[in-house]
Amino acid sequence: MRRGEIIAVGSELLLGGRLDTNSLFLTDGLAEAGVEVRYKSVVGDEEADIAAALRMAARRADVVVLTGGLGPTTDDRTRQAVARATGRPLRRRAEALDGMRRQLEAWGRTPTKAQFRQGLIPVGAEVLANSVGSAPGFCLRWKGAVIVALPGVPSEARAMFATAVVPRLQMEVAAHRRVTQHRCIDRRVLHTVGILEAELDHRLKDLVGRGSGIRLGLLASPLGVTVSLTLCGAKTKVMMDELVRRVRRRLSPYIYAEGFATMEEVVGRQLARLGLRLAVAESCTGGLIGHRLTQVPGSSAYLDRVAVCYSNRAKTEWLGVSERLLRKHGAVSAQVAAAMARGARVKSRVDIGLSVTGIAGPDGGTAQKPVGLVYIGLDARRRRGRGSCSVTKVCRFHGPREAIKLRASQTALNLLRQWLIADGKAARS
Amino acid sequence: MRRGEIIAVGSELLLGGRLDTNSLFLTDGLAEAGVEVRYKSVVGDEEADIAAALRMAARRADVVVLTGGLGPTTDDRTRQAVARATGRPLRRRAEALDGMRRQLEAWGRTPTKAQFRQGLIPVGAEVLANSVGSAPGFCLRWKGAVIVALPGVPSEARAMFATAVVPRLQMEVAAHRRVTQHRCIDRRVLHTVGILEAELDHRLKDLVGRGSGIRLGLLASPLGVTVSLTLCGAKTKVMMDELVRRVRRRLSPYIYAEGFATMEEVVGRQLARLGLRLAVAESCTGGLIGHRLTQVPGSSAYLDRVAVCYSNRAKTEWLGVSERLLRKHGAVSAQVAAAMARGARVKSRVDIGLSVTGIAGPDGGTAQKPVGLVYIGLDARRRRGRGSCSVTKVCRFHGPREAIKLRASQTALNLLRQWLIADGKAARS
Repeated sequence: MRRGEIIAVGSELLLGGRLDTNSLFLTDGLAEAGVEVRYKSVVGDEEADIAAALRMAARRADVVVLTGGLGPTTDDRTRQAVARATGRPLRRRAEALDGMRRQLEAWGRTPTKAQFRQGLIPVGAEVLANSVGSAPGFCLRWKGAVIVALPGVPSEARAMFATAVVPRLQMEVAAHRRVTQHRCIDRRVLHTVGILEAELDHRLKDLVGRGSGIRLGLLASPLGVTVSLTLCGAKTKVMMDELVRRVRRRLSPYIYAEGFATMEEVVGRQLARLGLRLAVAESCTGGLIGHRLTQVPGSSAYLDRVAVCYSNRAKTEWLGVSERLLRKHGAVSAQVAAAMARGARVKSRVDIGLSVTGIAGPDGGTAQKPVGLVYIGLDARRRRGRGSCSVTKVCRFHGPREAIKLRASQTALNLLRQWLIADGKAARS
Repeated sequence: MRRGEIIAVGSELLLGGRLDTNSLFLTDGLAEAGVEVRYKSVVGDEEADIAAALRMAARRADVVVLTGGLGPTTDDRTRQAVARATGRPLRRRAEALDGMRRQLEAWGRTPTKAQFRQGLIPVGAEVLANSVGSAPGFCLRWKGAVIVALPGVPSEARAMFATAVVPRLQMEVAAHRRVTQHRCIDRRVLHTVGILEAELDHRLKDLVGRGSGIRLGLLASPLGVTVSLTLCGAKTKVMMDELVRRVRRRLSPYIYAEGFATMEEVVGRQLARLGLRLAVAESCTGGLIGHRLTQVPGSSAYLDRVAVCYSNRAKTEWLGVSERLLRKHGAVSAQVAAAMARGARVKSRVDIGLSVTGIAGPDGGTAQKPVGLVYIGLDARRRRGRGSCSVTKVCRFHGPREAIKLRASQTALNLLRQWLIADGKAARS
């Protein structure tokens, strides 16, 4: 496996409360070309710092990609830093300027004096044309490493990388047959909810023993734990398919999505397929469930309305939750959750009502009803045969307010997902 | 100026299409403590890679902060890597386990065998308690550098850094007077909405000329443009105060918050101070406004309810919007926005109603009503003197669905903010 490193250049990435996002598509593109990114780093506009980072990376890696610092202003120092680190002086290169001129003319502009700086390229480097902007990139070999310099503007970096860099890297891979036959990356991601990170690790670790060539990544968040399986080695596709099958078998009840799919997309597809309409009654989640469901284009096909009832009066007026019930059990109770779900369904005359009521904190908790206590209700009518079916679930979440809201929304949507798998057809037929 | 480096640990940050966001607040916190971040890097879960990154960083920097890899699973290798790099073997530390046990008991759980791994701390290191999660951090001195290891979960890293790390670093700064007198960083952030990045740049650039020692950072997002001013040098506090005064004067109508404050916090404080209660009627934003308002602890004091009315029937039943009006002007119209705001206020018997109706896309647009067309309504009763006041605003937003939802929610909350400044008192008195 060839090793890659990405260096993002720019003081704004160290100071400006701002992140380097280029490394995301660079990582994917490099993986396609059989290059595994082992380090990413961010340095400021100091020429010496950039040069030091480049020397270090070139020692460790086969491919080093720099982004940023190729612009026309005096704080764009990547050209000089590469020249300093590699001992290849800068020379003005005609083709570099041509590309820039074409671009500027296309926009009806003429190059400024400053922009001519962008024509300076290290001796022996290959110029990479910029099809989107004005700053050319370049690419050179130094001490056995391929060094690629791309602009920092994402659209420019993306275009240049895709058109000029990836093909070169892939040709090289093809050249060293050994490499292609030998190694490449395959990666699968499965999203789980309702199971602890440590428990997942315990259930999967025999599949990913040392030397298996499989890397297991577990990432816990308020939405659950994401399982990523990365395979470096031969016959990867087949091995990976089998591995994923085994992981699915072991975790089936907990896996709600794979790849880039989200819980709200999964639930939305289920509702659309079954032709069922939903109404939601939220209290402590404050609209988060509605927000998530409506992130999905076309969600109006299955979402009728959402009532965020922060006051008891709203619960009574909009959802028909009786004041007696609220007085007797309190707003945060299984009885009120059930009544909210039923009310949302009946008042909206839809198929399913989903409700959440709880204490998001940090204040408002008591010994009997601590912060993080959340009740979830689901109420659905059975079309064939009369009556309705009602489910309630009690949870105890931890963490800050945002985390409790996220966990509650995820658990409510997962309850709906599981119910649709088990009973969705009955509600439909 | 002391030099800092941040190392984010986790293969998911190299492979998972995910970015390290901890470094954002870490950079700010380190700057407050007089530490300038010169390098940020991301490494995977390989013990050797983490150790190599740490050795390199400790050679260059005075303060090295690692985040991630402290969890209970076998792919959490930061503890071992620090032990390997510094030659400080791991020992199980009682206080580390105590903290974790307290946490787990609070959640009604008992530690798993795997979680006991989290009690392993390098010899001579100080344990940093985790007030939010279960993984303890630690901090040690090695070869003149302070090395801090924090969990990867942002809420845990943030809490631990703020409570345990920043104070230590600031005490050290106080200890080396020379350092503080000499150089330090001051950074101020102002959040604007309703003005373009280029226009901001044009209005501010004369304040931040070369040699001024001031770095201007502009970061545009769907929530607006954030202006960050960074000053390195002597007498920074005084210069910065004057600079911020001048920036405030030039941008006053557009600045809605400073520092870490959010729009929802600002609006919440206004409502609480004026003793006004709010009801919201959302259509295309789908609950996002309610979600944002309820991210603020104590929001139940001023938020009564939110109606997310995706269907026209919901608009009629819950908000009393007449079917005639909906037929005549369509759901996406100034008239319906006004009726929704009024309905939300009157039905909930609160002081102010805020409404949004529009087309979030990507589908559903027409020549007359394109994707991104959004109407915002505000309706408030005047307590002294009778009648009510009503404002509507039409906007045309661009971008993908999520961006349009965010822009619409931000513009609606900003309309409410501006109205509360101008007329809030009248509504109150």
